[in-house]
Order: sequence, then structure tokens, then C-alpha cells
Amino acid sequence: MRPQLQNMALSLLPTPEAAPRPELRDFYAMLRDYPQRGGKGIRSELLLLSAQAHGLAEGGAGWERALWLAAALELFQNWVLIHDDIVDDSDERRGAPALHKLHGVPLALNAGDALHAYMWAAVQKAGLDAGFSEFLTMIHRTAEGQHLDVSWVEHGEWNLQPADYLEMVRLKTGFYTIVTPLRLGALAAGQPPHPDFEAAGLSLGTAFQIRDDVLNLTGDPAKYGKEIGGDLLEGKRTLVVLHWLQHARETRRHIFLDQMRRPRTDKDPAIIEDLLEWLRGSDSLAYAQAFAAEEAERGLALLRGALAQAADQAAAGQILALMETLTQREA
Amino acid sequence: MRPQLQNMALSLLPTPEAAPRPELRDFYAMLRDYPQRGGKGIRSELLLLSAQAHGLAEGGAGWERALWLAAALELFQNWVLIHDDIVDDSDERRGAPALHKLHGVPLALNAGDALHAYMWAAVQKAGLDAGFSEFLTMIHRTAEGQHLDVSWVEHGEWNLQPADYLEMVRLKTGFYTIVTPLRLGALAAGQPPHPDFEAAGLSLGTAFQIRDDVLNLTGDPAKYGKEIGGDLLEGKRTLVVLHWLQHARETRRHIFLDQMRRPRTDKDPAIIEDLLEWLRGSDSLAYAQAFAAEEAERGLALLRGALAQAADQAAAGQILALMETLTQREA
Repeated sequence: MRPQLQNMALSLLPTPEAAPRPELRDFYAMLRDYPQRGGKGIRSELLLLSAQAHGLAEGGAGWERALWLAAALELFQNWVLIHDDIVDDSDERRGAPALHKLHGVPLALNAGDALHAYMWAAVQKAGLDAGFSEFLTMIHRTAEGQHLDVSWVEHGEWNLQPADYLEMVRLKTGFYTIVTPLRLGALAAGQPPHPDFEAAGLSLGTAFQIRDDVLNLTGDPAKYGKEIGGDLLEGKRTLVVLHWLQHARETRRHIFLDQMRRPRTDKDPAIIEDLLEWLRGSDSLAYAQAFAAEEAERGLALLRGALAQAADQAAAGQILALMETLTQREA
Repeated sequence: MRPQLQNMALSLLPTPEAAPRPELRDFYAMLRDYPQRGGKGIRSELLLLSAQAHGLAEGGAGWERALWLAAALELFQNWVLIHDDIVDDSDERRGAPALHKLHGVPLALNAGDALHAYMWAAVQKAGLDAGFSEFLTMIHRTAEGQHLDVSWVEHGEWNLQPADYLEMVRLKTGFYTIVTPLRLGALAAGQPPHPDFEAAGLSLGTAFQIRDDVLNLTGDPAKYGKEIGGDLLEGKRTLVVLHWLQHARETRRHIFLDQMRRPRTDKDPAIIEDLLEWLRGSDSLAYAQAFAAEEAERGLALLRGALAQAADQAAAGQILALMETLTQREA
């Protein structure tokens, strides 16, 4: 993430030194923890590139508006990650323990809520009514996708098709990762967002998430920042897993579902290692990669068309290049 | 709560019938659950009375602005209650099972987040920049109070004075229950909030919360809507308990703290019944009631002065009457 953006986000948060009590010093430090860990800043970068492509010059009039929206997007991701880590009971985030592992669920949940409000302070700083509505839509869609994802885990639902996964991932990842940043960039530049941004962004977001699912199985732990195999421990329904279940031998399928029925603490580490090997050795990985490549291609084609008339073609080209690297990334 | 306000809040939320998938039908129903359970609507009523006192006529120009702010305040309480019930692992809310008891923590946490965003949609409907900032401040202070309250439970902290309780309760309850509704009413009417609203509201909010703590020990279960004795099961630091601990015999103090060190499920119901009897039979109840009465008196005096020049003295009188009943309520 651009240091400038991180500083803007942090500037909205209270500083531990200013806390009137030791407990609040801890609270303020909790609010700053995830934002200080950084992150790649893909979404904020996409927003800023979109603003440039739509004619907003870096550092020119209106640029600060785009920066505040970008900072708000980073704060959005931070509070969502705090709550997601609780829901998934994840151990790590960005190479360090998850916030609820450091402070317990009740305090981390509350810190996520507070950070959610500070996100709106960043949106307010941008001072753009259309940006406000854009954030509302983004949160509504992301929460719907989260509900699908989590309800399947909660209800032990495995009777799912790839189409179910795709609907979930478009809602949960597509809006906040691609559609909303593209649209916010246009709005920051005072332009109406191209109607194809939504379809393009949902396809590219899907490709992005499938890549993430694959990296969760096969990635380099040092680069990836989350625990490898974590999705499996959390019982996540991914395209790889849904495809594998449709094609696995009955005995393996049975062993897999038996482990998935257990809470994380009751899962057998040795069997989970087997499952990981089976998934890694299956053609479901290649299937998912091919599926992602197709989604990426469809999204790129739509996006290329939507940006054909953009004011700044150099920035438009950077957007397309960023989108291409996202589906091929190693971390 | 006024049915009109409840309908306005519900009108912002998606309807289950319109859901594109069965899982989302459940999600939309979850969002509407707490708002549909009603609630007394004390805070929204106070906001509307404050708007009237400041010259906004019911049904006149600008009234809808006040109504949207009031609806937003009710939505605030609903998402906070969903998350608080998770944190406290409360069994009941408004006479029915808590949301996470019906759907599990992960889905309830996510529904609370989504409802938080819908609260901002109601704030946006009001279209008042100052109202937006007011909600930010309210959430920041409430989250700070929640952090104090929860961190004491999480860290087993019992080395606390009444002053610690008072600081917690002013942050956690005082702003969203009294200070913010009073200020929002003024802002909705286009008037600057009186500077004494803050001190008045913090005293009255303290009196309100102490009354709530007392009712949690001695209230009528049919009227109260939460489980009697729930605060004790949750290990809440209340003024009654902190005072009792300072004056209890060492053996009883030891038994009390031993139970408080245990997680809720390991607490001994028979001993908890004893503790409840000790608290109910102690003079700590009377101490807390007297403390609340003093806070109420101080707050009322300040508020009376702050409203002396208000445009609508009938509404100002209703505010003072409402404040008086709040500290003497039975539910």
C-alpha cells in the first residue's frame, strides 16, 4: 500500500499516547494494529488508477478526494478482516497472529466495529455523496456473500454446485475488490462509472478469488501471509473442493466429508494432510485455474472496452496490467 | 417505539420475499429480526422531543429529517445489541432468544455488521452533515466504553473503584442514550446543541444505567425482557457489585470472586443464587440507588437550565418528565 494512504487512514484513528486510561491505550493500539500491518493495497491502487484513467491528475484538484476514498477502502478491508478472522477462527493475518488471538474475541469484535465507523469518517472526508452510496452497496453485497459462505459452513451444506460458489464469490469478493474501486475512481473524477464495470469486475473478482483459493492450497507460506491449508481447516467451499468432490472416489469423498463435519479442533491433522495431498494432486486445481483464466479473459475484454474512451490511456493500460497480474500472482 | 419509526427503519432493509436465494432470504430475515422485536424507543423519542423543543413542529418542514435520524438511532441500537449479545453470550433479547442463539455467532456477527451499514443509510436519508459527525462521535465513545467494560471481564480485573465504573458507563451508555439524542434533536431543528447537554446527558445516562443494573438484579422477569441476574453470570462490573465487594465479609468476597473467575458455563447455579441473595440483601443496592438519584438530580438541573430558552416549552417539559421516569422505571 502507498505509505501516504496508510498515513491518511492512521491519521483518523486516535493515538495510544493520547489515551486517558491504560485500557483505552490498548484499545487505540488495537484499532491501529491491522492498518499498521500494511497489506498489498490492491483495491486502493485500483481506485487511484481508475481516478487517473478518468482524467483526475495525481496531485491535481480533486486528487485528495480520491485518496480519502482509497483510504476508506483500506479501512473497510481492515475491519472486515478483523471480523472474518473471528468468524473463521484464523490463526494469522499478514504474517502475525490474528487480532482475536492476541486480545480475545469480545475485544476484537468491538475493535472491528469501531474501525467500521472510522471507515465512514474517511468516506466523509472525501465529501462525495455518490461515494457514500457506493460504500453502502459494497458493504451490503459483501455481507450477502459472507452470509452465503458462512451459512454453508454453519449448516454443513455440501450439496453445492460451482454456480453456487460463483454467486457467493461475486458477492463476497467481486464488489469490494474490483467493481467498487473501479466505480469510485470514476466518481472521484466526476465521471459516471461505465455500466460494464460491474460485469467486468465480477468476472475479474472471481478470477482473483479462485487464484486466492489455489494459493491457499499451494502457495509459499513465506509470501502468502495466511496459513496454507487454512481454507480446508475452516471448511471453506472453494471451486477446487466442489469440483474435486464431484469427481473423487467414494471412499476419499467419505473421508473428506467426515473431516469437514468436525469442528476445527476435532479435525485430524494427519488426515487433513492427506486431503491436501489429494487436492493438490487432483485435476481440480487445473480445472479451477482454467476457470479463473476464462473469467479473467472475459473480464479483461469487457474492461478494455469500458476503458477504450478513458481520458488517460496510460492509466487505463496500468489498470489492465494490474488485473492481469492479479490472476497470476504468487502471493 | 413509534410504529412510524420502526417502519422507516424496516423500509431500508431488504425484504425476504425479494431474496434471490433461500440463504439470502434467511439473511434478510435476520436483519429485520431485532428491529421487528420493537423496543421501548427511549432514545428516538428523546431525539424527537428535543427536535420539537428546538422549534421543529411535528409533521412540519424538516420533521422527516428528525425522523430519519431517530430511525438511525434505533438501527444503531439494534446492531450494537446483536454484537453485545454475542460478546456477553446473552440468552435472550426483548423476550426472545438472542440472534446468535438462533443462528450461531458467525452469521449473527455478519448480520450486525450489515445492519451497521444500514444505519448509515438512515443517516444519509436525513441529509445532515452535522448528524453524520454526531453518529461518528457516538460510536467512538460507545466503543470505548464497551472496551472498558469487556476488557475488565476478559482480564479478570476486579481492582476497580466506583470512579472506574462511572467512566465506563458515561462512555458506554451516556452518549448514545442521552447526549447524542439531545444534540441530534437540536441539529435536526437547525439549532446549535446547548453545551450543557453533554454534562447533563452523561449524568442522566449514568443514572439510567445504574437503574438498569439494579433492575437486572431485582426486576420483574416478565417486564424486563432480559434474564434477571444475567449481569452476574456475565461477570459485569456494576456499581452495586463494586460497592458490595468493598464492604463484604472476606469469606463472601472470596466465594464471589471465585465464581467470577469461572467462565459462565462453569459457574455454580446454586452459589450464583446465593450471590444474588447477598447482593439483594445488602445496602449496596440502596447505595447505588442513592447514587443514581444524585446523578439524576444533577443532570436534570443542568438540563432544565439548558432548555430554559427552548422554543417549545411543552416539549421541553416532556423531555424533563421522560428523564425523571427513566431513573425510576420498573423495566
